[in-house]
Amino acid sequence: MSPNRANSGHVVALSGGVGGAKLATGLAAVLAPERLTIAVNTGDDFEHLGLTICPDIDSVTYALAGLNDPTRGWGVQDESWKALEMLGRLGEAQWFNLGDRDMAMHIARSWRLREGETLSQVTARLTGELGIAHAVVPMSDAPVRTEVLTDTDWLDFQTYFVAEQCKPIAREVRFLGTPGAAQAPQFAQALARDDLAAIVICPSNPYLSVDPILAVDGLRKALVAKGVPIIAVSPLVGGKALKGPLGKLLGELGKTCDNRAIAEHYAGLAGHFVIDQLDSDDAEDLRNSGLCVTVAQTIMHDADDRESLAREVLSAVGVEVV
Amino acid sequence: MSPNRANSGHVVALSGGVGGAKLATGLAAVLAPERLTIAVNTGDDFEHLGLTICPDIDSVTYALAGLNDPTRGWGVQDESWKALEMLGRLGEAQWFNLGDRDMAMHIARSWRLREGETLSQVTARLTGELGIAHAVVPMSDAPVRTEVLTDTDWLDFQTYFVAEQCKPIAREVRFLGTPGAAQAPQFAQALARDDLAAIVICPSNPYLSVDPILAVDGLRKALVAKGVPIIAVSPLVGGKALKGPLGKLLGELGKTCDNRAIAEHYAGLAGHFVIDQLDSDDAEDLRNSGLCVTVAQTIMHDADDRESLAREVLSAVGVEVV
Repeated sequence: MSPNRANSGHVVALSGGVGGAKLATGLAAVLAPERLTIAVNTGDDFEHLGLTICPDIDSVTYALAGLNDPTRGWGVQDESWKALEMLGRLGEAQWFNLGDRDMAMHIARSWRLREGETLSQVTARLTGELGIAHAVVPMSDAPVRTEVLTDTDWLDFQTYFVAEQCKPIAREVRFLGTPGAAQAPQFAQALARDDLAAIVICPSNPYLSVDPILAVDGLRKALVAKGVPIIAVSPLVGGKALKGPLGKLLGELGKTCDNRAIAEHYAGLAGHFVIDQLDSDDAEDLRNSGLCVTVAQTIMHDADDRESLAREVLSAVGVEVV
Repeated sequence: MSPNRANSGHVVALSGGVGGAKLATGLAAVLAPERLTIAVNTGDDFEHLGLTICPDIDSVTYALAGLNDPTRGWGVQDESWKALEMLGRLGEAQWFNLGDRDMAMHIARSWRLREGETLSQVTARLTGELGIAHAVVPMSDAPVRTEVLTDTDWLDFQTYFVAEQCKPIAREVRFLGTPGAAQAPQFAQALARDDLAAIVICPSNPYLSVDPILAVDGLRKALVAKGVPIIAVSPLVGGKALKGPLGKLLGELGKTCDNRAIAEHYAGLAGHFVIDQLDSDDAEDLRNSGLCVTVAQTIMHDADDRESLAREVLSAVGVEVV
């Protein structure tokens, strides 16, 4: 593969939910649709009230469609909660926040799945209907379910994350369904492209959002075997997780909450690393360990920030942008 | 059975949707919970977007819970339509109106059915959660689906009723699943009670709302065999159907649009008949055919009207009220 071909080639982004969705949106702003495939974690997916809910696919979809709620930080904008309130009156569970607009997504997905479509097909259909030109693909069409071992028991991800608000101490994370979950067809096809230029690991939780993707059959080996740059954007800013349980989790798993721990987690996989400007002191140490390090503003407040970070990331691995 | 026991005995009401729900609400206002069973048409039920929707059970439930929208005349009050709007953006069907609060009912019912509950169990659960003390029971736990033969083809009920707005000419009505649909357990138990005092046929469409109930296995014979008064409230007022396609349907089926046609439809079943005060001229002719006729105000604008009509109906068949 010549450098020139690689430079204008295809990019595969691995994304979890909100943080990943922001960078995915930035990448979509600077790469033509045929140059980007966003492969999304489905380990958070769960069945709730008979609906198949895919929180990370939804976060990426809402962000790309411009429908995400920037104030709340999750879910759909202009949202209301009448169905959820009524579900409560009907004696049904209310612990998982389901807005009325969001509910439509779960209803449409669930019934299309029951009609026999794969998660890939449903996702392509629904993102297409929302006018999203870039490919959003689940990591796998086979169900993978993340579970967290706490002091008392294994908890499914949403029980740990939403119902228990990440309060239990986490001892271990596992991904039910792996091995046995194949790469989704479009994901595999994107990775098999002759013009594959780079793989971007978005700033998502390495343990809870990226590891499930890496647990898909043969994926980690396949990524390394591609021989293209793999660049990870650290989810830490100023030595802390911007949101979510990453900081707490690192401690509970016996790691330090710093970029060294994140880099070690991706050792042997990502040779490129993007850290926030507040952590520029970490750069030398990381470079000494053999990584190519880019210091950038990784906090993405708005579209400009998202696009700017996407440009930095792609520039770091020599990929041309529009 | 002594007249005294009968007088304070149990009443079974057969109800379709909105009109039936109004009288059912009136009956519930004047009969203690242990004295009334409301058996509801399920021929209108259908599967839509993966949800099991039971329009008549919902109309009765919302009316009894005081949640019905009196202005719109159907559905839930304080309703919004965000999920439906989003379903449209997702390329899904919007022809059947699904409000956000209403959606919760369909979601709860559908997932409980998938979990293995019967429609009777789900209905008891959901009406109970809404504080409804009276028994609301489906006519059958087996799916019955009303279909209307038009000039072109058999249409399922909701396609005929909602999507086609009853515009096609109706030639015939049939109830898929019958024979073969047994009475729901609570319905059969209510009819088997020693203290059964009367059966009330609510002012619902005889062809589209009451006939499916009568098509339940053995029901028509069982009702007659009880030997208790059966009283039908005419759905016509001033020689016209208050709402819905009844008037048009009567013509298409070769009947006249008057109380004679309704009475003939229930011949051999209902010996008592309630007609509206605007149709008092019909009384003599109906009496001459051997019916016991009560003239009353059958339009129910408010709770007083509903209770008043319920009292007239029960009084006509010698049933005590509170």
